This record gives sequence, structure tokens and C-alpha cells, in this order.
Amino acid sequence: MSKVLIQMSMSLDGYVAGPNDNVLPLHEWMFAGPGSPLGEELPTPDQQIFNELRAVTGAMICGRRLYDITHGWNGSTPFGAVPVFVLSRSVPAAIPSGTTSFTFVTGGIVSAVAQAKDAAGGKDVYVVGGASIDQQVLDANLVDELRVDLVPVLLGRGIRLFEIVSWH
Amino acid sequence: MSKVLIQMSMSLDGYVAGPNDNVLPLHEWMFAGPGSPLGEELPTPDQQIFNELRAVTGAMICGRRLYDITHGWNGSTPFGAVPVFVLSRSVPAAIPSGTTSFTFVTGGIVSAVAQAKDAAGGKDVYVVGGASIDQQVLDANLVDELRVDLVPVLLGRGIRLFEIVSWH
Repeated sequence: MSKVLIQMSMSLDGYVAGPNDNVLPLHEWMFAGPGSPLGEELPTPDQQIFNELRAVTGAMICGRRLYDITHGWNGSTPFGAVPVFVLSRSVPAAIPSGTTSFTFVTGGIVSAVAQAKDAAGGKDVYVVGGASIDQQVLDANLVDELRVDLVPVLLGRGIRLFEIVSWH
Repeated sequence: MSKVLIQMSMSLDGYVAGPNDNVLPLHEWMFAGPGSPLGEELPTPDQQIFNELRAVTGAMICGRRLYDITHGWNGSTPFGAVPVFVLSRSVPAAIPSGTTSFTFVTGGIVSAVAQAKDAAGGKDVYVVGGASIDQQVLDANLVDELRVDLVPVLLGRGIRLFEIVSWH
């Protein structure tokens, strides 16, 4: 049964992004070890967590802002050939070419989740963010699991997970 | 060498106290298992953490407000005979009798830490709080180690650790 997952890296003081959307101090753990970023032999426990997420993910959902900030991961997300559904108000004229296929969904979050589930081949749907998308999918009661990876850094400023994610 | 420790339980959303100073949801883990609260055979990993803190603690420091809220732990802290130094503006007329000896320090945090170190017999000084005392001892650069016990609950409101604890 396909689950809908949110998995976020959070600093010890509760931030999921620093000032100016900077997430590097929070995501370094994914890419810091030997064989990184995407070797098949990733030895550290941190990288095992990332590999586990990759292994269960059959499709991804992101928002248009995150897509734009990452420049569409330059065409290839760290999840390789897994399709990405981008919740968006419009379809961009050009899409960077790479290993990832992008579908732009203008019909809202419920439609995006349905399409991602269809595409996931029985694996899970990973909602990669950003914050607005996380909140929308939570508000629609479509999240099966929210995972927090606590990172032992202090950011002091930024966007707090539990200000953007509300609970009903 | 005697260290000065702060150890706090923090909720997943960053709170060290809920509304109205309620800390029960955060401290339940210390007392929930068989043999609790203070048996010698405490089997769970949570209780091992608490036992470890007890084992290294030779003296404690708290603020007058925490002392008043807990009614001086009714005379006996969970740390038994370990002496407690209460930073205070005045000495109360009556002190509850029990296993704990209380000393009321009116000379400020530096004096409280010095007295507690003297009394700790080579073991560590545990600054139990509250928040104002934690901040004072941090501001005085007297903290050797700050430990956060992350508790998997959400409080939603209250006092956030990283609003009361600032870093220089």
C-alpha cells in the first residue's frame, strides 16, 4: 500500500530552513560521507537513512517554489528516475533535461497526490516540500507519516517546522 | 574535574515547558517504568539516562521560582541527599524536611556555582533550572555541557528552549 510521506531535516532549535531558504547546514549529512552523494556503498548511519528513503520512494511531490529554487535539481533529483509532480500555477516553457521526469500539476494538491500514487508503482510518495506544500498536504489529511531527522546544529533564525506545520 | 551541566527535556517542537509551567508531559519518561521513580533497578533506556545523571551529580543549583513551584520538592529531590543551592533574594522562614539539604544563596550565580562545586565532592554540578537560572549560568560562561533530552511529544505552546537559552 502506497504511503504519503513527509521527511524533513530539522535543527536542534527547530528550523527546517535558515535565513534566505538556506538548507545546506541541515542537509549536509546526506552527502558528507565516502561514496557520496549517490554511490551504492554508503557506509554511515546517516546515509543509510537517506538510502532507506530512496528505496521506498516511488514518486515525489514538490512545490513550484522549491522547483524554481533548485532549478529543477538541474534535471536530476538525488532520487534519479523517480517521477516528480510539481504543484504549480503554470507549466514552464523549458525543463532541464536529466534523469528525472517532471509533471506540472495545476489542479491542486489532491490531484497531485492521486497522480503521484498512480505513478509510484506501489511504492511510497515522498512529499519533498517546500513548507507550503507540506502544509497543504497535511491540511488535506493526506499524510500517512511525517518523519523528522534531527540535525545537531543550531541555526538561530529561519523557518521553524512547527510554525509551518500545524496540527488539527 | 567537576563539570557544570544543564540537562533539559525538550519536546519535538522545542518547548521545555508547556502553558502554566507544566512540565509533566516532558518528564514522564523519567518516572514511567517499573521500579520508578527511584528504584535501583530501572530497566528502560530512558531510566538509564536519568540514572546516569543521578550518578554524576554531586550538587545541584536551582532558582527560587523553581524551588517555590516544586515546594522544595517537598524536602526530597529525586537526587536524594545531594545538596541543592537555591539562588534567591531571601531565605525562607521554613524549609520542608526530607533527604535534601538546601542552601539559599543571595550572592549571585557565580557564588552559587562556586559553593556547589565545593560541595560536589569532585562530582558534577547539575543546574536543574528554571530557565532564568540556566540563562544566568550560560551568560556567566560557567556551563561545561548542555544536554537536551528530546521527548517525542508536541506541546504547541509554552516556553521554547532556544528562546530562553541564547548563544554568544
